[in-house]
Amino acid sequence: MKSSTSPRVRSVRRVATGCAAAAIATTVLFSPSAAFAETADNGGAQRNDGDNTVPLRSAIVDGPATNVILLIGDGMGDSEITIARNYAYGAAGQLPGIDALPLTGQYTTYSLYKDGARKGKPDYVPDSAATGSAWATGTKTYDNAVSVDINGAPQQTLLELAKANGLRTGNVSTAEIQDATPAVQVAHVASRSCYGPDSASCGADALAAGGLGSISEQLLDTRPDVTLGGGSASFTQTAKAGDWSGKTLFEQAEGRGYQVVKTAADLAGVTAANQEAPVLGLFTPGNFPTRFAATTATVGGANTPVSCAANPDRLGTDLSLASLTNSAIDLLNSPAESSKGFFLQVEGASIDKRDHSADACGQIGETIDLDEAVRAALDFAEKDGNTLVIVTADHAHTSQIVDSTPPTSLSTAVTTLEGSVMKISYGTGAAGGSQQHTGAQLRVAGYGPGAANVVGLIDQTDNFFTIANALRLNRDTAALSAGAKATLPKTVFAPGETFDAALTGLAGDRQITGVVASEPVAVPKTDVLAGSATIPLTAPTELGEHTVTLTGSQTGTIVTARFTVTADGQPLPGGATGTGGATGNAGGLASAVNGALASTGAAVFPILGAAALALLAGGTALYRRRHNRPIPRA
Amino acid sequence: MKSSTSPRVRSVRRVATGCAAAAIATTVLFSPSAAFAETADNGGAQRNDGDNTVPLRSAIVDGPATNVILLIGDGMGDSEITIARNYAYGAAGQLPGIDALPLTGQYTTYSLYKDGARKGKPDYVPDSAATGSAWATGTKTYDNAVSVDINGAPQQTLLELAKANGLRTGNVSTAEIQDATPAVQVAHVASRSCYGPDSASCGADALAAGGLGSISEQLLDTRPDVTLGGGSASFTQTAKAGDWSGKTLFEQAEGRGYQVVKTAADLAGVTAANQEAPVLGLFTPGNFPTRFAATTATVGGANTPVSCAANPDRLGTDLSLASLTNSAIDLLNSPAESSKGFFLQVEGASIDKRDHSADACGQIGETIDLDEAVRAALDFAEKDGNTLVIVTADHAHTSQIVDSTPPTSLSTAVTTLEGSVMKISYGTGAAGGSQQHTGAQLRVAGYGPGAANVVGLIDQTDNFFTIANALRLNRDTAALSAGAKATLPKTVFAPGETFDAALTGLAGDRQITGVVASEPVAVPKTDVLAGSATIPLTAPTELGEHTVTLTGSQTGTIVTARFTVTADGQPLPGGATGTGGATGNAGGLASAVNGALASTGAAVFPILGAAALALLAGGTALYRRRHNRPIPRA
Repeated sequence: MKSSTSPRVRSVRRVATGCAAAAIATTVLFSPSAAFAETADNGGAQRNDGDNTVPLRSAIVDGPATNVILLIGDGMGDSEITIARNYAYGAAGQLPGIDALPLTGQYTTYSLYKDGARKGKPDYVPDSAATGSAWATGTKTYDNAVSVDINGAPQQTLLELAKANGLRTGNVSTAEIQDATPAVQVAHVASRSCYGPDSASCGADALAAGGLGSISEQLLDTRPDVTLGGGSASFTQTAKAGDWSGKTLFEQAEGRGYQVVKTAADLAGVTAANQEAPVLGLFTPGNFPTRFAATTATVGGANTPVSCAANPDRLGTDLSLASLTNSAIDLLNSPAESSKGFFLQVEGASIDKRDHSADACGQIGETIDLDEAVRAALDFAEKDGNTLVIVTADHAHTSQIVDSTPPTSLSTAVTTLEGSVMKISYGTGAAGGSQQHTGAQLRVAGYGPGAANVVGLIDQTDNFFTIANALRLNRDTAALSAGAKATLPKTVFAPGETFDAALTGLAGDRQITGVVASEPVAVPKTDVLAGSATIPLTAPTELGEHTVTLTGSQTGTIVTARFTVTADGQPLPGGATGTGGATGNAGGLASAVNGALASTGAAVFPILGAAALALLAGGTALYRRRHNRPIPRA
Repeated sequence: MKSSTSPRVRSVRRVATGCAAAAIATTVLFSPSAAFAETADNGGAQRNDGDNTVPLRSAIVDGPATNVILLIGDGMGDSEITIARNYAYGAAGQLPGIDALPLTGQYTTYSLYKDGARKGKPDYVPDSAATGSAWATGTKTYDNAVSVDINGAPQQTLLELAKANGLRTGNVSTAEIQDATPAVQVAHVASRSCYGPDSASCGADALAAGGLGSISEQLLDTRPDVTLGGGSASFTQTAKAGDWSGKTLFEQAEGRGYQVVKTAADLAGVTAANQEAPVLGLFTPGNFPTRFAATTATVGGANTPVSCAANPDRLGTDLSLASLTNSAIDLLNSPAESSKGFFLQVEGASIDKRDHSADACGQIGETIDLDEAVRAALDFAEKDGNTLVIVTADHAHTSQIVDSTPPTSLSTAVTTLEGSVMKISYGTGAAGGSQQHTGAQLRVAGYGPGAANVVGLIDQTDNFFTIANALRLNRDTAALSAGAKATLPKTVFAPGETFDAALTGLAGDRQITGVVASEPVAVPKTDVLAGSATIPLTAPTELGEHTVTLTGSQTGTIVTARFTVTADGQPLPGGATGTGGATGNAGGLASAVNGALASTGAAVFPILGAAALALLAGGTALYRRRHNRPIPRA
């Protein structure tokens, strides 16, 4: 926003941008003597370019938005932002991504206690699970909770809702993908450390305990079109229960149609990502290595300034957060896919982690990484014109810029781009211990349709509604499954004959389970892809009429279909198939179908409605991978 | 902005607002069990009331503004704001003033080094002098500087410019009025501790050293219409040089027409404040006592939560910052005064000071005090409709909200309105030492015409331009004095005859000095009031033509007037008064005057122009208090 009369700042920015990425890590490229002389002039440090009234008006764009990209700097408070800017671009410089968003506000991040007398009262210093759940679901909850409320009830997430509304979805992080921030979009567990089937903390959430499963298993159920991050270790664990018991989660992913990618080359080979073949890219066993090598803060240690050095273990830049963001956008925005738009969450995870470790250069590098991802998102959004970009953090953190070495706290001094010394203090934990999150309100910034909702003071939960409203998401998922219908290829089968039930219109659900009450035949739990599913059935051996009852796992929507089993698989004389059964028409497509019988929103136990059965023939084949297992899990 | 569907937040706010002021200090009035149950509901913690797009658009108002009120919370970073909100209104509550501003952004606060190899490079942790100078003048400078640049050159301040442009001006603080934040609007010194004539730190700024004088003395020169705060101690000091040498600054103030008030009753008796009789209200020798009694943080001390208690030494609420803000607004906005509008700066000073002292309750009370002043300003602005209100801070500070007691840092725990415990850590200094400022970017918020300029990322210096532009201030003060003219009552005088020169059109200046080169007659340094001054002169004893040269102290604008001294004070035969002199006309008013001869902006040494002399008779009498002294100081 600097005017043409102020070439200094532009020139600083150009130089700084030019030396970004690895170069910044190792050397100071820029002699500030000439450029910063102007900073001392009257008006020399201005950032506004004349009156911002007209530009601000034009930055306010009505919704809806076609796409939303939400970028989270974990632990990225104003202090972390300022530290990174000072280091890499100078105090008068500009972070090309984070600082470029035109609409800005603050939000509150507190969580709630869930137990005892404090239940429902605020916890002023939240963790990443509660905070992520807040924007993912619009519900304040307790530290440790992943998209469940203080009573443990699962809350619908933006990613789930976007998917239910026919949008494409993505989830990107530099952390293991089970970490709280990515997890909040795809899973519902009481304890954030319930990463995989081996996690002892899963408790009642474990599949074996009748729960929804670990975060990794729920991720597979949620089935975003694109998932990119770390955390492959959990996917090498073996399911302990459910349809995939005994198989590793990687095997399960492949069995359920995922494109599993583990390297940059793998990712480069992916040409499409969709519900039939979603991308699961896990590039490290745990979190990504950081961009900059770690620095160790010491008590009294801020007197010898250091420059940040590149981390030799860093992944290739084709796996940088900006690169992954671009990959996700490319796949989600592919013109080859019919789509109503997309929702993408991107997390720069290790700002927080390096802050906990009092690692100044670590946190700086991760903030720069996130900033580059923000820039990538903005570049897309500016071209696209219908994309809302929101950039914020989950909670404030410990690092502070100080003038002198604190006597009892950890600190590190770094030499910035400008050749000045910046001292960074970590005063909330002991040396060797973990530094603490802090409870200050945070910056939230936006660009694009609907971004006006970040301005002023909001709460973290407002972001859920801002995004849901911008995308015009129907949050009544039961309504999204209300038009469900099942189609059988014909109405009469021979005992043991196999056939498929084709379900459509079940957009509010991600899985469907089934039962034939009259005889325990296998009805597998089946993924619902874009509202449709193909359920493999086997005709019972008992002759007569049967009903298959299919239940959407998320909305509880029930669809039933009746068929008749005869000894020879031929209709009985006279065409009668039994009471109330419509006759099948092998050649007919889904032209005369009774749809969903009932829907009750997110309730688990729907009421069976009066209308009945879908049982026409010729359902079109949908994607399906059949697998064998004994009796399907209800 | 909470909708009618969410009565909870409104009710919380109402209760909290109702128990503000002293009640908050002593007790928890509010049982949160019912109200906060809703916070846990989906959407229960939302702050937006539906889509903010239309409200935000309507909050963007084109300039110009008639009035500007700038409110500064010294050291009030996002952490300090959040701490005060949590304590007094709850985590889901709203500070009635600070949180109510619709337009929000962040700004950078770094200062610059002034010496040696670091000259001009950024200092990432600024002090209140550099930061105040930044918004007061638009110029980045060094820590310790009061509205001088890194080379020591005085920079025009908003208050000075507002005054030069015919606006009324005010300066309110809970600190001693010489403290950096109020000082930056009225003085220009190299060292912020140059409070009064006794201050050893004044150095070259001392009047005796030929400087502009101490902050207190410059304040009297700058002559805001309304000055309210602490710091009377410095005004009991005695001037060491200048026209008022040997007199206390209080005597000087009264001699120069100030209404000096020292108590709430005094202030209540003031009915008008203007350039003829500005108000100087100094209610304490030093800083104001705080609202809440101090708490003492200890290492490991955060485990026993306390409630904040009222400070028995607090001044009466008729001297609260909100009350003083209202008083200042009432006086500046008085319909009895012809005015183009006003500029008012209000500082809540001791948020910073209590932060330095690791005093949690102290800083909370001061933040609430500032918030109430903000609410007062907003109440006026909302009624007025043409007032820009900006609320921000000068620099971030040390306090952080933490989850657990830091092992080596000071902390205090407080029980909040909601009955939750909030732990506040001070990790940048040792116990007993001063905690440090921090360098994080800060919240800046605005309401009214021109407030769009606070949104996004700006620099502290942008606020100078935002305010100057909103008020359409002409910053070329020389141009504001370019129409200056001097009027003598007649053209011929007897030796030793006393008469007045009436100056008008000298709006760019605040004082005028004079000299009659031909003979050392006394020409006193005289206050320019609203561009006008009446200079008492004495005719030289030497017969013949004389020229009095009058120089505006700030712009260097020179106005000369010639007159003739004759033995009997009667014109010489034939009416000749000398070469080039226009003849006076005793009866004529200022109808045929040559005005200023030259103006050169803020330069001290103007070039004498070609046109000449003002010497007409009958200048209208202006306010003046004549006083005796030998030879006026140039």
